[in-house]
Amino acid sequence: MAKIKAGVLGATGAVGQRFIEGLKSHPWFELTSLAASERSAGKKYREAAKWRLESELPDDIAEMTVVNVDPREVDADIVFSALPAADAMSVEPAFAAAGCAVASNTSSYRMVEDVPLLIPECNHEHLDIIKVQREKRGWEGFLTTNPNCTTIMFTLPLKPLMKFGIESVHMASMQAVSGAGYEGVPSMAILGNVIPYIGGEEEKCETEPQKILGHFDGERIINANFSISASCHRVPVMDGHTEALWVKMRDNPTPEEVRQAMLDFDPGLDDLPTSPKKALIVKDEPDRPQPRLDRMRGNGMSVSVGRIRSGIRFICMGHNTVRGAAGASILNAELLVKKGLL
Amino acid sequence: MAKIKAGVLGATGAVGQRFIEGLKSHPWFELTSLAASERSAGKKYREAAKWRLESELPDDIAEMTVVNVDPREVDADIVFSALPAADAMSVEPAFAAAGCAVASNTSSYRMVEDVPLLIPECNHEHLDIIKVQREKRGWEGFLTTNPNCTTIMFTLPLKPLMKFGIESVHMASMQAVSGAGYEGVPSMAILGNVIPYIGGEEEKCETEPQKILGHFDGERIINANFSISASCHRVPVMDGHTEALWVKMRDNPTPEEVRQAMLDFDPGLDDLPTSPKKALIVKDEPDRPQPRLDRMRGNGMSVSVGRIRSGIRFICMGHNTVRGAAGASILNAELLVKKGLL
Amino acid sequence: MAKIKAGVLGATGAVGQRFIEGLKSHPWFELTSLAASERSAGKKYREAAKWRLESELPDDIAEMTVVNVDPREVDADIVFSALPAADAMSVEPAFAAAGCAVASNTSSYRMVEDVPLLIPECNHEHLDIIKVQREKRGWEGFLTTNPNCTTIMFTLPLKPLMKFGIESVHMASMQAVSGAGYEGVPSMAILGNVIPYIGGEEEKCETEPQKILGHFDGERIINANFSISASCHRVPVMDGHTEALWVKMRDNPTPEEVRQAMLDFDPGLDDLPTSPKKALIVKDEPDRPQPRLDRMRGNGMSVSVGRIRSGIRFICMGHNTVRGAAGASILNAELLVKKGLL
Amino acid sequence: MAKIKAGVLGATGAVGQRFIEGLKSHPWFELTSLAASERSAGKKYREAAKWRLESELPDDIAEMTVVNVDPREVDADIVFSALPAADAMSVEPAFAAAGCAVASNTSSYRMVEDVPLLIPECNHEHLDIIKVQREKRGWEGFLTTNPNCTTIMFTLPLKPLMKFGIESVHMASMQAVSGAGYEGVPSMAILGNVIPYIGGEEEKCETEPQKILGHFDGERIINANFSISASCHRVPVMDGHTEALWVKMRDNPTPEEVRQAMLDFDPGLDDLPTSPKKALIVKDEPDRPQPRLDRMRGNGMSVSVGRIRSGIRFICMGHNTVRGAAGASILNAELLVKKGLL
Repeated sequence: MAKIKAGVLGATGAVGQRFIEGLKSHPWFELTSLAASERSAGKKYREAAKWRLESELPDDIAEMTVVNVDPREVDADIVFSALPAADAMSVEPAFAAAGCAVASNTSSYRMVEDVPLLIPECNHEHLDIIKVQREKRGWEGFLTTNPNCTTIMFTLPLKPLMKFGIESVHMASMQAVSGAGYEGVPSMAILGNVIPYIGGEEEKCETEPQKILGHFDGERIINANFSISASCHRVPVMDGHTEALWVKMRDNPTPEEVRQAMLDFDPGLDDLPTSPKKALIVKDEPDRPQPRLDRMRGNGMSVSVGRIRSGIRFICMGHNTVRGAAGASILNAELLVKKGLL
Repeated sequence: MAKIKAGVLGATGAVGQRFIEGLKSHPWFELTSLAASERSAGKKYREAAKWRLESELPDDIAEMTVVNVDPREVDADIVFSALPAADAMSVEPAFAAAGCAVASNTSSYRMVEDVPLLIPECNHEHLDIIKVQREKRGWEGFLTTNPNCTTIMFTLPLKPLMKFGIESVHMASMQAVSGAGYEGVPSMAILGNVIPYIGGEEEKCETEPQKILGHFDGERIINANFSISASCHRVPVMDGHTEALWVKMRDNPTPEEVRQAMLDFDPGLDDLPTSPKKALIVKDEPDRPQPRLDRMRGNGMSVSVGRIRSGIRFICMGHNTVRGAAGASILNAELLVKKGLL
Repeated sequence: MAKIKAGVLGATGAVGQRFIEGLKSHPWFELTSLAASERSAGKKYREAAKWRLESELPDDIAEMTVVNVDPREVDADIVFSALPAADAMSVEPAFAAAGCAVASNTSSYRMVEDVPLLIPECNHEHLDIIKVQREKRGWEGFLTTNPNCTTIMFTLPLKPLMKFGIESVHMASMQAVSGAGYEGVPSMAILGNVIPYIGGEEEKCETEPQKILGHFDGERIINANFSISASCHRVPVMDGHTEALWVKMRDNPTPEEVRQAMLDFDPGLDDLPTSPKKALIVKDEPDRPQPRLDRMRGNGMSVSVGRIRSGIRFICMGHNTVRGAAGASILNAELLVKKGLL
Repeated sequence: MAKIKAGVLGATGAVGQRFIEGLKSHPWFELTSLAASERSAGKKYREAAKWRLESELPDDIAEMTVVNVDPREVDADIVFSALPAADAMSVEPAFAAAGCAVASNTSSYRMVEDVPLLIPECNHEHLDIIKVQREKRGWEGFLTTNPNCTTIMFTLPLKPLMKFGIESVHMASMQAVSGAGYEGVPSMAILGNVIPYIGGEEEKCETEPQKILGHFDGERIINANFSISASCHRVPVMDGHTEALWVKMRDNPTPEEVRQAMLDFDPGLDDLPTSPKKALIVKDEPDRPQPRLDRMRGNGMSVSVGRIRSGIRFICMGHNTVRGAAGASILNAELLVKKGLL
């Protein structure tokens, strides 16, 4: 089978590089187009971007010429968007209108009614809203989104707890600097320090999960009915968001019941190449998960959970630029293929 | 007035060094005795301890000879204890029996019924239980304690909220490595990492505040009646515990009412040399308090509070080995002087 | 005596803040003017600058209105310049022409023939070149400079070694992030990492010391005659440049002779308020100096030296934004007062 | 072909874990025995050791029972030793006497006359001294060693420069904390700090390279004739030693000639499974190599070199617990197989 042509919008930034890393030897997608701002367009990728990942940049990609973020210049069946939110607002619809599938990591359209906000393990059935979207907007292509990186880490473990009747969630995050992009956090701000504020993050964490864990009734998504109160903090960690959760549930399950529900969680996505063997890994050691030791589990796509104790309290942790960003979009795209949308 | 003779038990460790720093030029106390384990006893302090604070060790203290942790060798009216919990169990009563006042930073006796667990700004009236203690135990001296470092940072801001009827507290901490002592946290464990577990810490945070904020009825302390659920985490910060709090209150105050209550908080301890001008500092910038920038406020004795928002949620932060350890014990000792107990 | 009116050019940046910290309660200077770019001019300092030092910003300074970097707007007898090098090129002469003394921390004029490049402990006699400068340029005011932060740390300990006949120097630096300014080093670049390159730094380290340690013959400065080879590296340290030195000397002194020469070094500047009691501190512990423990010695103005061993090799370390920047300029200004130039 | 039975001595520590990681799916060796101290012997590896690597510990290894460090308990043709130096002194000869090949990462026997100190890319011909060793000592087995981690990183790039006539070397290191073992460097010692001293390290760096780069004349190794002066420093980096080198050479090559010599360096070991495609990688970017970005090149077995400039100065960097420890011993063992010694 011929590979599907894939482009990356915003290819030079931190998440753009993770997209390239995830797509460079993908079995279903072929990287055909790298798009970035005017400053980069026309240059070889090697010159336009300073490669900052620990994995190596393949020579053939380094030699690709960067194009403008314009549907006429991008040759692709699907584009992965790592654009700044302001740019995405106008650019992503233009690609969808031009017949492209858009898998966006940007926040602009996440909470828009007819746009699916996907974690394949949680709500793959929300994809059906694309019919509504296309009809309403008259697009040949379509637009899908994945959640904020902090949202993903705790929404995944909430999924198997839905059956206990979630009533309220408290979440305190300890987030890695890579979540803010390469220039996002100056070293003088964070070396040996904690910054107890990340602009807009708490709002995203308090609204996205209810949509993701909501019910699609054929026409619209009805949000899940529980409250979330978040407190978000930056810590001196390169990659990996660690989150402390309190979940109050109607059925008042024991920690062991919660643990078992997480162990039993099987989203049935083994046929997707980027899907980890286990979406949720339960750690039984008292001091895990830890970002340094656990963020690369499942090639960076697993969320690790530990310290499940009365409250119900637990810790969850995952790789914010893989599971929480580029990998999330790529998994969404694989789901599109599986569902015949691509 | 002649100064009061003060000794330090466990003088060579991280908190012991902070005791020396706080006492070396104290207006009321004179450092007369440094006690440590057999390994150190008999040596000059300079040789027994590797000084690891940023302030300088005065030469006259460096030249003092370390003695054994034994009331017969320690010449002091009051001893400050930074002993390991196991040692403190037998040693602190021996000093109290020998007529010494003991101001302990150790956990061993904190929750014992007739021992005051003090934050002078919160419950100075609990000191009256010393009468009960002396009678019951037949001691000439007596024993006071200060709370765990993590407890102090959030109990202080809870104090002015008591009037709103605290019902429950959720607390997530991001704690500095110095809380574990000099050898406590290997660099390989924490560089670029988060450890979501600190042995025994959550239990202390969930039991000490109710005693501190409880009521002394002349005979015993009746615990305050609210629940606490804590999640404690270590982050790569040298000094300063940052804590995210959620406080549910009967009266449902607004964030502005909470802020005002904290601003108005005046414990009336200005006559104690170690007491900061403001026990609680309210920061209005969106990204404060931060450990690097705020831990030295009030010479390390103020707790800084910020991000007071609906929930009620807020952030509090203080210096764990000053406000949370040595400085806490010294402030307790100053209170003893003020109350005529020394 | 009335205080001398002092202004700060570039008052909002990292070094500008250190200037304010050093001048806010200075016995000889009074902070009368804070100048910064157009973006800041007209605002209160509190709004124009985000204060990022651990010390507190006094309220009266926070309320000062920032002015433009223009001699007509700055009311001062002396201005301290923390301007970007490109701006300094035209602005500093304008202030000197307008009758101001300029004490610059910027690199623009350091190596210009008639401009003194001062470390008061090393070459206060170079100040006499100001006569030459004023005559040549027709300025009412004048311009002095201090060296690059990395240069200062190793040039100070070289001074007492000049008598042994320095022939060549090898220097490897491990530099703090604050040397690059607040936004200079992204956290993603340096967390758990070393960057073995700092643009332009090696060139400065290889040319400035010979001028500083050179001889002023009444007309010009004749550079000292030895070679320097530098390798400069950034490490995850907030403040404090650590440098490994190899110094080859004609007289081949023993480590003990070198140590004694450093101990004996007495520049005779005790009457300057910012001058530390000891310009050079010799540490005899095997693992010192260290930035965290030693950078604040002498209020951040001492350079600490240790591990003097065969080679001759040694380690030197000092606070890069105090001794190496703002404090250096302020000490220069105090020297100007002492010499009657202000 | 049947795999060769391999044991690890000191299997629970930091380097021991790297040995397991390197051997767990090795094409030539089969991990048959894990030996550690009495405290661990008899336990399952899972219980004896806390696994601290980012890669996962395979279940079958986790279930192996740890044995004592005793030739009678260890079933292996070759043992990899990560023992403390004091233990290795008596234990390693016991294994050699019992007929085992010993590939040691420990310092005890490195400088002993009849023991080869190997970097296969530099001096594989030194292996012939094993004949001398066996004759002299009457061993059925034999003992080989690899150099100190810091030595390896700069000795490898010195090899292709030997033809220019190396006269002297200056080396300043910025070393990772993992080099000291898991408990070696407390976080309070190194967070935001530099420690300019590592016990015994400079001596190793100043003596091992001359043996490695020396000539084996059939009977003994004649050391290479150049001097080394080292200054060793610890920085807050997890893995990867960065080193600044100055190399003075008789032929005075240009930086471009040095670069070319390094590019041309081909040790001809492509048939060894652990040998990287390139032993030396030359980076042309101005700010490389960096530990975070480059330490995993060649699966952690390449040394990256950059900033080759006049002096001759350059930077070299490699993974200290892979290339500098476990991987070095494993590569030595593979050389033994290739040479028919195993």
